[in-house]
Parts: sequence; C-alpha cells; structure tokens
Amino acid sequence: MAEFSIIDQFCRDIGPKHSSTKLDIGDDAAIIRPDHGTELAISVDTMVSGVHFFEDVCPKRLAHKILAVNLSDMAAMGASPKWATLALTLPKADPEWLAAFSNGLKTSAKRFGLQLIGGDTTQGPLSLSLTVIGTLPLSKALVRSGAKVGDDVYVTNTLGDAALGLALLNGKLELSPDSSAHAIDALETPEPRNEFGQSLLDIATSCLDVSDGLIGDIEHICSQSAVSIEIDFESLPLSSAYQEYINANSLDPRSISTLNYALNGGDDYELAFTAAPEDAAKVFNRANECELSVTRVGQIIERESHKVYLCSNGARLNLESSDTKSFEHFS
Amino acid sequence: MAEFSIIDQFCRDIGPKHSSTKLDIGDDAAIIRPDHGTELAISVDTMVSGVHFFEDVCPKRLAHKILAVNLSDMAAMGASPKWATLALTLPKADPEWLAAFSNGLKTSAKRFGLQLIGGDTTQGPLSLSLTVIGTLPLSKALVRSGAKVGDDVYVTNTLGDAALGLALLNGKLELSPDSSAHAIDALETPEPRNEFGQSLLDIATSCLDVSDGLIGDIEHICSQSAVSIEIDFESLPLSSAYQEYINANSLDPRSISTLNYALNGGDDYELAFTAAPEDAAKVFNRANECELSVTRVGQIIERESHKVYLCSNGARLNLESSDTKSFEHFS
Repeated sequence: MAEFSIIDQFCRDIGPKHSSTKLDIGDDAAIIRPDHGTELAISVDTMVSGVHFFEDVCPKRLAHKILAVNLSDMAAMGASPKWATLALTLPKADPEWLAAFSNGLKTSAKRFGLQLIGGDTTQGPLSLSLTVIGTLPLSKALVRSGAKVGDDVYVTNTLGDAALGLALLNGKLELSPDSSAHAIDALETPEPRNEFGQSLLDIATSCLDVSDGLIGDIEHICSQSAVSIEIDFESLPLSSAYQEYINANSLDPRSISTLNYALNGGDDYELAFTAAPEDAAKVFNRANECELSVTRVGQIIERESHKVYLCSNGARLNLESSDTKSFEHFS
Repeated sequence: MAEFSIIDQFCRDIGPKHSSTKLDIGDDAAIIRPDHGTELAISVDTMVSGVHFFEDVCPKRLAHKILAVNLSDMAAMGASPKWATLALTLPKADPEWLAAFSNGLKTSAKRFGLQLIGGDTTQGPLSLSLTVIGTLPLSKALVRSGAKVGDDVYVTNTLGDAALGLALLNGKLELSPDSSAHAIDALETPEPRNEFGQSLLDIATSCLDVSDGLIGDIEHICSQSAVSIEIDFESLPLSSAYQEYINANSLDPRSISTLNYALNGGDDYELAFTAAPEDAAKVFNRANECELSVTRVGQIIERESHKVYLCSNGARLNLESSDTKSFEHFS
C-alpha cells in the first residue's frame, strides 16, 4: 500500500476543521493562521512499541493515548489544543489495523478539538510521534518557573493507577475485575486535563504534568522556580484500586515503597501545580466545574539542600535515592 | 543516561534564538508568538535507520539531512523556516554519537536559521522525526493547485544524483572519485532550496519538492491543478556525474531506463514549479541571484487521460507503468 494511499485513506478528516486552518493534509506543508493576540504552545511526544506500549495493544486505544499524552503537555501549559502532525512508522501496512487506528484518532481528535494537519508514514518498527500545537492568550502560559514560597501544591485526580495497570498487564499483581479495568484504562486511555489546565490560567503560579512520576517531575518546578517542595505523604490521592492493592497485599500504608507507584510510577497524565493560599477556593471551584478532583499535597518552601521532601505528620522522611527514581528512558 | 540529561546536553541552543520565541526547551511545551500578518507552514518528516539511511551513517551528516528534508518542504511552500521539534529514538545513549549529531544539528540549524524549540528522546530502533514550522506572508503560499494551462514547468539544479549515490553505496555501480563524492553528497547532505523558494512567492503558480521522484511528485500538481504535464525528455538537467554514469556504461541517452534515476530516483530535494511564460526572465533572474541553476523541463497542458507525458522531440513516448514508479514506502 502506497504512502499517499495510507494518508488519503486513514489520515484525512481527523478532528474538526478549524477556521484558522488554511491548508491541511495534501501539500508540502499545512498552513495555519493564528489569531492576532495569541501565542502558540508546541510540544512533541513519541511512543515506541515495546517501550511505551505492548505491540498487540488495541489500535484504537493506542490512537487515543498518543493524542492524550501530547494533549497533557498542552493542559500543563493551559493551552487550547488545535492542531497536530503525526509521524507514523509501521512495520507493514495492515488495512485492518490502520482502519481501527484511524477510527480511534477520529473519535479522540473530535472529542479533544484537535485537527490533524500533517502526517508522514514510513516503514519501520512501530512507533508514533505526534507534535501538537495549541493556542494561548499572550504571556499567560503556565510555566514551571513561577512557584513562590508559601504556595500550595496540588495534583489532579489520583496517582499511580497507570503503573498499577502496567504491573497488572505484566502479571506482577492481581486485583478485582473492576479495579483491574480502572488501572488498565488509566494506563491505556488516560484523560488529559485540558479544560482544567485552561481554567488555571489566572490562578496557577506553576504547572506541569507528572507523566514521568510525581517526585521526578515536580523537581523541575523546584529547579526552575528556585524553591523546594514539601509533600505531605498522607495526602497523596489514591484510587480505590490503589487502596485495594494496599489492602490485598497487606502493605504498610505508611511505607514509602507502598506508595512507589503513586510517587514514581509515571504515565499518570495528571497535573501538578502551585497556587497562592488565598486562591485555594478558586482552585477547588474550577476543579468542581470541570468535574475533576484536586488534592492539596504540599507546599512550596525556601530552597534547601534537597528539592523535594516527603513529610509524614509534619516530620521529614529519610529518602533513599531509590525512593525518588522517576521513570527515565536510557536509565 | 537520563532523558533530561540528553536534552540538556545535546538538544539545547540549536539554531538562532528568534525574538518571537517566548519559551524554548525545558517546559511542557515551547511558546512562539508569530508576527501579526503572517501564516505558519507546518510539516513533518521521519527518517528510519535501514529505510532512509544506513545505520552507520555519519551522525553529523544525518543531522544535516533530517533538517534538509524538512526544510525542503518549507522551500516548496515558499516559507521561511523558523522553528522545529525533534523526536529522536535511539537504541542506546552513546555520548560520542550524540555529541557528533548535536554538533551537526548546531551547524546546519544555524546556517538554515532554524531554532530547535522542542524535543523528545526515547529508546528504540534509531529513527528521527522532525516537525518544522515556517512563516509566510498571508495567502501567498506556493501550493500545488495553482498551475495553469500554458505555464512552463521548471526544476532546480540536477536530478537523479541522490539515487546514483545510493546505487554507489549499495555497490551497484562505480564512478570516478569526484563523481562518487558528488553523488553521495547529494544523497547524504542535500541542500534545501529555501532562499529560492521564498523568491518564487510572487512568481510560481504551483510548487513542490520532488523528494519522491520527479514523475510521481509532479502528478500531484496535475491532480490538484486539474491539468496534465508534458515533460521534455531531452531537457532533464543531469549532473556531470550522471553523464559519466551514462557514458561509462554505454547507456542509450534516449532510453527512458537510462534516465530512471532522474525521473523516479527520489531523495532529490529539488523544487519543481510552474510559472507563466511571461515570467520566464524573472524565474531565471531569481535563480541567478540565488546562484542556483533552473531548467525549463516542460509545460502545463489541458487535462488528458494521463497526468504526465514524456516527450522527445515533440513526440510522446510510450510509458510502461514501471517507467513512472516513484519511490513509495510500503510499495
């Protein structure tokens, strides 16, 4: 099957046609005309078979996930996702797989308001690389460098579910059918927090997504804002699936290793952000409007020798270096 | 070696810092603020080891090529390249390879005026996917749909050299050292025609790059402009290396198969474009200013049963389907 044919059949008409899109798939490049008074946020993420997903993963779910992981970067900037280009590398052109993948892209892109304006299909080991472009009001982006001493630290939803899902698929643990489905859904069809990210534009002082694990990722806020963070160990939001994992295995809920999936698991496309204490009510109101739970998990403190401190009942826990190992490629 | 470390060491400070770049590598997304009155051209291209390049290719040359193939799409739109995101998938983090690759990126990005504003490094089989963003004056892009009956058809520089280079590296033919170097350079370090593409904004009626082979690619102009094209077989511009290939192998210069590399070879990052006959002097003047050779190779005719006709001394040649097979992935 020829490249032109793949693009024609499976990559056209993905997502809404924005009026600011002047030319989409079919020329040497797409053309967009951003509105005056806007900035563009641009981000790229790649997923490789055998590294980021199982080779036999449902193509519809894979399509959702490559969009979701990129949209999560837009959410973390408070940007409205608008356009994407997809580089799709396939071992062979399997029309059945492509049709399912394309349907998944259509469904998820429509829901997220994202238009696919460019694509490149090549032959090789299965991988997907998506570049996403979103719009922002001028100078309003939620960057990592604005956290202030005294700010509260929040995370959305629950942590560690995707890592639980991966452990389930790898046969490392067992959970009830409901909890298993919840954790595997968290891994395979994460929900980017775009609506909520955009609602934080005038509230959050810093924001990022914790896709590489909470501890490893929030260190970036510390580095770029020149602060440290105290995380309240008991406050970390856990799903009922995570609670079942703790209970069924008789784990000590006060042990750091018990919360390893939540602290360092990765693949959670949740936001961690900071806001001034006087904005706490606004934070919870916006979350409520987005039907999303948000938990205050810590606070920003003056920069100390470590970036992140885990605290239990007000006392700092001693962290081994293995306790703060976030997900790393090439580690 | 950790992902953060790879990005920090090898992906920062690639290319000029444009004043319209508000945030580059280091956050969840980059932020750009396009000038009012401009449009953006966006394109993506992927190169996979063993498909698009030899695994042991010089990393500096590989860096040049992934930029050049993408910039060629910008040239074909008449856009000024400004920003890029790079998804780099590597089997392992080899600091020596990465340093050479990064140096190559720096050198070529600086020369092309392209700033790397985003990157993602993942582990997997070696491949590179670059999304490039360029700027254009409003509604001026060189699209494929504007060719008019009577327009002249031009190509830049010479055709078939990259395919000759590939045949040389595959041991399928031999040429003199000078010709070999020329052909392998054409394959590994192609020169995108951005300056010339931009100079065509008020002249060309349609334009594309012929990276998949002249015949296959100009069919897109026919489809999108609803015309056919007559190509003058004797006018196709050939390098002295190509002439040496013809002479050394005693090939019939009037045989279509002799010109197969030039007609269908692919990996030539030259422009094919159309312009009204009265603009011929302008075309050659602009080419001259860009120190680039341009050749008139045919003309646009009313749409007939075939899209492209090869003509010799005014008579149409009979084409076998194998004569017009352009480079296709998954073919």
